[in-house]
Amino acid sequence: MNDLNAGAAAALARMREQKPLLHHITNLVVMNDTANVTLHLGALPVMAHAAEEVAEMVAMAGALVLNPGTLTPAWIDSMLIAGRRANELGIPIVLDPVGAGATTLRTRTNLRLLDELRIAVVRGNAGEIGALSGAGGAVKGVESIGGLHDPVAVARAMAQARGTVVAITGQRDIISDGARVLGVDNGHRWLTTLTGTGCMATTAIAACAAVERDHLLAAAYGLAIYGLAAELAAAHARGPASFKVAFLDQLYNLTPEQLEAGARIVELAPTA
Amino acid sequence: MNDLNAGAAAALARMREQKPLLHHITNLVVMNDTANVTLHLGALPVMAHAAEEVAEMVAMAGALVLNPGTLTPAWIDSMLIAGRRANELGIPIVLDPVGAGATTLRTRTNLRLLDELRIAVVRGNAGEIGALSGAGGAVKGVESIGGLHDPVAVARAMAQARGTVVAITGQRDIISDGARVLGVDNGHRWLTTLTGTGCMATTAIAACAAVERDHLLAAAYGLAIYGLAAELAAAHARGPASFKVAFLDQLYNLTPEQLEAGARIVELAPTA
Amino acid sequence: MNDLNAGAAAALARMREQKPLLHHITNLVVMNDTANVTLHLGALPVMAHAAEEVAEMVAMAGALVLNPGTLTPAWIDSMLIAGRRANELGIPIVLDPVGAGATTLRTRTNLRLLDELRIAVVRGNAGEIGALSGAGGAVKGVESIGGLHDPVAVARAMAQARGTVVAITGQRDIISDGARVLGVDNGHRWLTTLTGTGCMATTAIAACAAVERDHLLAAAYGLAIYGLAAELAAAHARGPASFKVAFLDQLYNLTPEQLEAGARIVELAPTA
Repeated sequence: MNDLNAGAAAALARMREQKPLLHHITNLVVMNDTANVTLHLGALPVMAHAAEEVAEMVAMAGALVLNPGTLTPAWIDSMLIAGRRANELGIPIVLDPVGAGATTLRTRTNLRLLDELRIAVVRGNAGEIGALSGAGGAVKGVESIGGLHDPVAVARAMAQARGTVVAITGQRDIISDGARVLGVDNGHRWLTTLTGTGCMATTAIAACAAVERDHLLAAAYGLAIYGLAAELAAAHARGPASFKVAFLDQLYNLTPEQLEAGARIVELAPTA
Repeated sequence: MNDLNAGAAAALARMREQKPLLHHITNLVVMNDTANVTLHLGALPVMAHAAEEVAEMVAMAGALVLNPGTLTPAWIDSMLIAGRRANELGIPIVLDPVGAGATTLRTRTNLRLLDELRIAVVRGNAGEIGALSGAGGAVKGVESIGGLHDPVAVARAMAQARGTVVAITGQRDIISDGARVLGVDNGHRWLTTLTGTGCMATTAIAACAAVERDHLLAAAYGLAIYGLAAELAAAHARGPASFKVAFLDQLYNLTPEQLEAGARIVELAPTA
Repeated sequence: MNDLNAGAAAALARMREQKPLLHHITNLVVMNDTANVTLHLGALPVMAHAAEEVAEMVAMAGALVLNPGTLTPAWIDSMLIAGRRANELGIPIVLDPVGAGATTLRTRTNLRLLDELRIAVVRGNAGEIGALSGAGGAVKGVESIGGLHDPVAVARAMAQARGTVVAITGQRDIISDGARVLGVDNGHRWLTTLTGTGCMATTAIAACAAVERDHLLAAAYGLAIYGLAAELAAAHARGPASFKVAFLDQLYNLTPEQLEAGARIVELAPTA
């Protein structure tokens, strides 16, 4: 555990030193927030979705975020073009399957991205991962309603079947690469009162994946950074909007030392 | 009036208990803000505009918001598809005719939505409603300039002609279903210093329409909730952005008791 | 210099009195922020990008902002349609070439806009202007990395060659119309921690261009207004998000008197 916390702190320091470019093809609701989260973490954002440029743009990136939260066929095409190029270049892809399970288009599109691309990390809520893994789980719009009976088993099985890291976020985040399983207990209930908090967590994972080759660790580090900033910000909240201001400030101000002391990453199955 | 205030308070309580899904097909400027307003009110937002999924998505919704503020032909098609399905299922549609009167495309599109769909409530400023009702009124971009000579008569006549509820927002909001007319005096001038405040008011109406079948009342309740939160937040404003933070916090913190005490809904013509 | 400061103050006063409409065809990341900046400065925003309406919309505008930060072919077509109409009507166009130099599509598109339209002011960072002028400069995503050896010479040469005003923003902003060169020293490092600050500066320039026919002065005034608001807001920052709130509040609260006292506009080459 101390190794994990030290690893998270080192990743945060690397992120700020290397300033990796995070290419987002993401939804219209969260573009501004995820660009700001990227900057506050010390990385550089670019939002680009034209089929004519995404292959060229992603070649400069440290990670690619695919988030079909307001998907249309043209955007899906661009995600596939960018994703194929990222795969060729060994650039990690982080997928946020917003609203998978809510409509046929969303479920099919996310399954297609998982089928056709090599995804480093997929991060979703219990409903979304339930829908994509076949484990059940229900989604109302983009919100998970009801949970998974055994999220550890679901994450591990889907990670094994897909050859990816699966992160199910919730009160305890569950992350597996098919063998190892980690839990992250950082976070705060204020996050549930804002839109786009899942998408912003995905951006934090992508920032870590750009500087940490072990994608299981990258996902855990990103979620610990994200959740700890929320915990530290909560004291300043008088409601969701003042919480958001304090949270974004805190992401920027978070030090590796605070992270090493405050990350709550637990091993739920052997990590060796 | 006490009945109206008690009704508003009860609607706010139902909204938080039932957490209706509000499907928005809305403009690119306000997506984040209207999603957050939806959450802060206690409802669940989803933004989805692909023709391939809107019929399926709206079937889960408690209300549908159509806001062609950054319209293109593809988005209009999706609005019609979602709207027809909402009509089939009896799901109320709230229309925000942003910028009607400013361009031919905007005026025609909003008239077409009113012609082809059964709209529960249309909420606009004096210029927009003036343009759609044929009563005159001028729009500069998306802003109303100059008012209507007799907004009560305009709202009532358009509501009668269209078989919908018409809400004209301004210093005093005027709402009519063609017979009854209500006024809402809640609100604050800080709202005029921010973009998207009309769109956010429309979201508040939709949240009420999901839990209140009398759409005249739903519109008045939504505008009272919205305006009262602005009044309570104004004390914390040092400018438009700090007002916005305080306002969104207040929407979340507003209690049914505060609403029952503070709603200023007046009967301008018999409600029975 | 006192003349320049008095001119800036007078422009700010005119902006608030005349409330010009600023038509934006801009990127998806900054739409909400730039609409709010427009309102806080005292102007009126409209965001409209449908080919079917942009020519009609721009005819009402005091200035047109073209910002291809999340460009697609359809949006570029709309920019050209709106731009041609603006040129016919003598409405100033302000171009923000986001990410020029990063991809072939971005570089070519911005060169095409410069070739086919008469642009009043082009504002970019050192990397973007370097790419468009052929002077070199490097862009990572949308961020300038490394500077220009001699930004004054680059701005002047590009302004001469293109017949436009060129503004290169950085620690000292450099502005030239091909003959005269001004520097603006207002600004604050907090601006670099937020997304869209370049785009918001472009909006401030457009607001000035709507009320000041000398576009060299309009660009300097806009950047002085923008930078001074940042300086005054910095004392209230606990991080990027609280800075943003204070900055937007300050844009709204900035008085012509504060601007006359605090603008730091310097003549780097004769202005007569």
